[in-house]
Amino acid sequence: MNIEMIRAAAGRLAGQVRRTPLLGSPFLDEIAGRRVLVKPECLQHTGSFKYRGARSALSALTPEVRARGVIAFSSGNHAQGVALAAREFGVPAVIVMPADAPALKIANTRAYGAEVVLYDRATEDRDAIGTALAAERGLTLVKPFDEPQVIAGQGTIGLEIAEQAAEAGIGRAEVLMPTGGGGLASGIALALAAEAPGLRVRPVEPEGFDDVKRSLERGEISPNARLTGSVCDAIVTPAPGAITFPILKALAGPGIAVTDDEALGAMVQAFTRLKLVVEPGGAVALAAALFHGREIEGEAVVVVLSGGNVDPALFAQALDRFA
Amino acid sequence: MNIEMIRAAAGRLAGQVRRTPLLGSPFLDEIAGRRVLVKPECLQHTGSFKYRGARSALSALTPEVRARGVIAFSSGNHAQGVALAAREFGVPAVIVMPADAPALKIANTRAYGAEVVLYDRATEDRDAIGTALAAERGLTLVKPFDEPQVIAGQGTIGLEIAEQAAEAGIGRAEVLMPTGGGGLASGIALALAAEAPGLRVRPVEPEGFDDVKRSLERGEISPNARLTGSVCDAIVTPAPGAITFPILKALAGPGIAVTDDEALGAMVQAFTRLKLVVEPGGAVALAAALFHGREIEGEAVVVVLSGGNVDPALFAQALDRFA
Repeated sequence: MNIEMIRAAAGRLAGQVRRTPLLGSPFLDEIAGRRVLVKPECLQHTGSFKYRGARSALSALTPEVRARGVIAFSSGNHAQGVALAAREFGVPAVIVMPADAPALKIANTRAYGAEVVLYDRATEDRDAIGTALAAERGLTLVKPFDEPQVIAGQGTIGLEIAEQAAEAGIGRAEVLMPTGGGGLASGIALALAAEAPGLRVRPVEPEGFDDVKRSLERGEISPNARLTGSVCDAIVTPAPGAITFPILKALAGPGIAVTDDEALGAMVQAFTRLKLVVEPGGAVALAAALFHGREIEGEAVVVVLSGGNVDPALFAQALDRFA
Repeated sequence: MNIEMIRAAAGRLAGQVRRTPLLGSPFLDEIAGRRVLVKPECLQHTGSFKYRGARSALSALTPEVRARGVIAFSSGNHAQGVALAAREFGVPAVIVMPADAPALKIANTRAYGAEVVLYDRATEDRDAIGTALAAERGLTLVKPFDEPQVIAGQGTIGLEIAEQAAEAGIGRAEVLMPTGGGGLASGIALALAAEAPGLRVRPVEPEGFDDVKRSLERGEISPNARLTGSVCDAIVTPAPGAITFPILKALAGPGIAVTDDEALGAMVQAFTRLKLVVEPGGAVALAAALFHGREIEGEAVVVVLSGGNVDPALFAQALDRFA
């Protein structure tokens, strides 16, 4: 896993992924007490950064292997990314999803042409299901984060941030991103280490599901005690990965944990101030920038909004409570 | 009023306005029955395209005149645009606003540092109030649409659409935009006539407030019978302007009128499919593309989302009804 893989992924993704802008708002700067620059990956194809990693992984397969099809397991955003990338290449995609995933995510994954296989998150093991189906049909498993070509795809966000921060005159800053298994954080960390060493990654998670934060504190992988009960469902994963964690241990600053209400409040700020739709899990880094300023260093902070696939009823409730 | 003024405005605005992207979604294409390309000016500074015209107008004043300050009357988006542009130039801004404008718009205008003077939309004449204040304090009146340098600023959107449509391989298409007094539509029409003659402007308005549509049909200015009662408040104006109407008469195709429910439905589609926050008036062109396809010609349509300053409670209600 190295910067050359990220540069190669950027070449394969050119013209396919959206180069998302770097936005700001004087109102957010005022709340945060420093300049806030936002990278809205909710505007990416399929509504999340996951399309980058999926497209990177599929584009790295040989045509023969890719033609047999791919399989993925995901609570939603990775699923949509793999489904769209597979459709673009004209190959089959099977997505193994928890039966309690948001209805919109299941419907969208099917709409992108994928076959959806549902499983019970409490009683079944998605890895076992995925591995069995892959073997049976000759499908290639595209892991959601602990997979070098996926990490390379997510790392292209880091290449863009390095360029865009330089254009904005920012040479030193912390870069906050929502973190589940660490594919996004580790990809960006590798890209920034090579291209913008004054920018440092800070993983952000929901309180009670802060496996990356704890693992970084302890210096070893420390899994989450539970996997349900956060409104930030999209970024709750069992533990950082065998590939992602060593990268974060070497390159990332300390993790930050935010409450569900802080995530929802940041979601409403993105609505009001940036005119962007962000899902709760996608808003945790903005929540950290707005409400945990004392845990952050520097005059400017860069924040990744990682996805926008939020249930409309939940969004309406958050507007009622926090707007 | 000519293309050279728009090109000059683009030069003055370079590095100040956001060059908004041209986005799409396969789901919107499916609903519309043709390719839909969206220009999200809700992502512009202050949350609407109005900043372009305001910044253009202020930047065209001599430093001496500008230093005495500016005044504007507006239901909200023009107000915020003028307020921010004035703050950037370090000059005073007085904004005359209807007392029943959305609270968020009044608060934001004040937050940008402007002095807000409220008036009663039913009993007072905003033009008279504005003119008197301007004379009294030596302020320059920045009209919301019937002002050449404002039209030139809005026309920079047309220059961007011409380039971005060509990059997307689109040489012939109709270009739909929300239309009040016609500043946005006439500016884009002039830009496209010069830079992309295969693209034709189609003004879109709320049903019952379709003064531009009727005026184009009759060949003469035909004012609205009433000015209140539409959820699309941001784009309800008395009549097309003395400068904007002749431009639209020469260059635009027929107008399209959409219902309030269609506007709200399009607002929800922008939420779900594009992850963008759009106000009802800012969504009428998308509503026309999605729900009035038989009134549109061609394999692709370009749609301007003109603003995103929507009341959160109204947005939550629309999600409950249409998502």
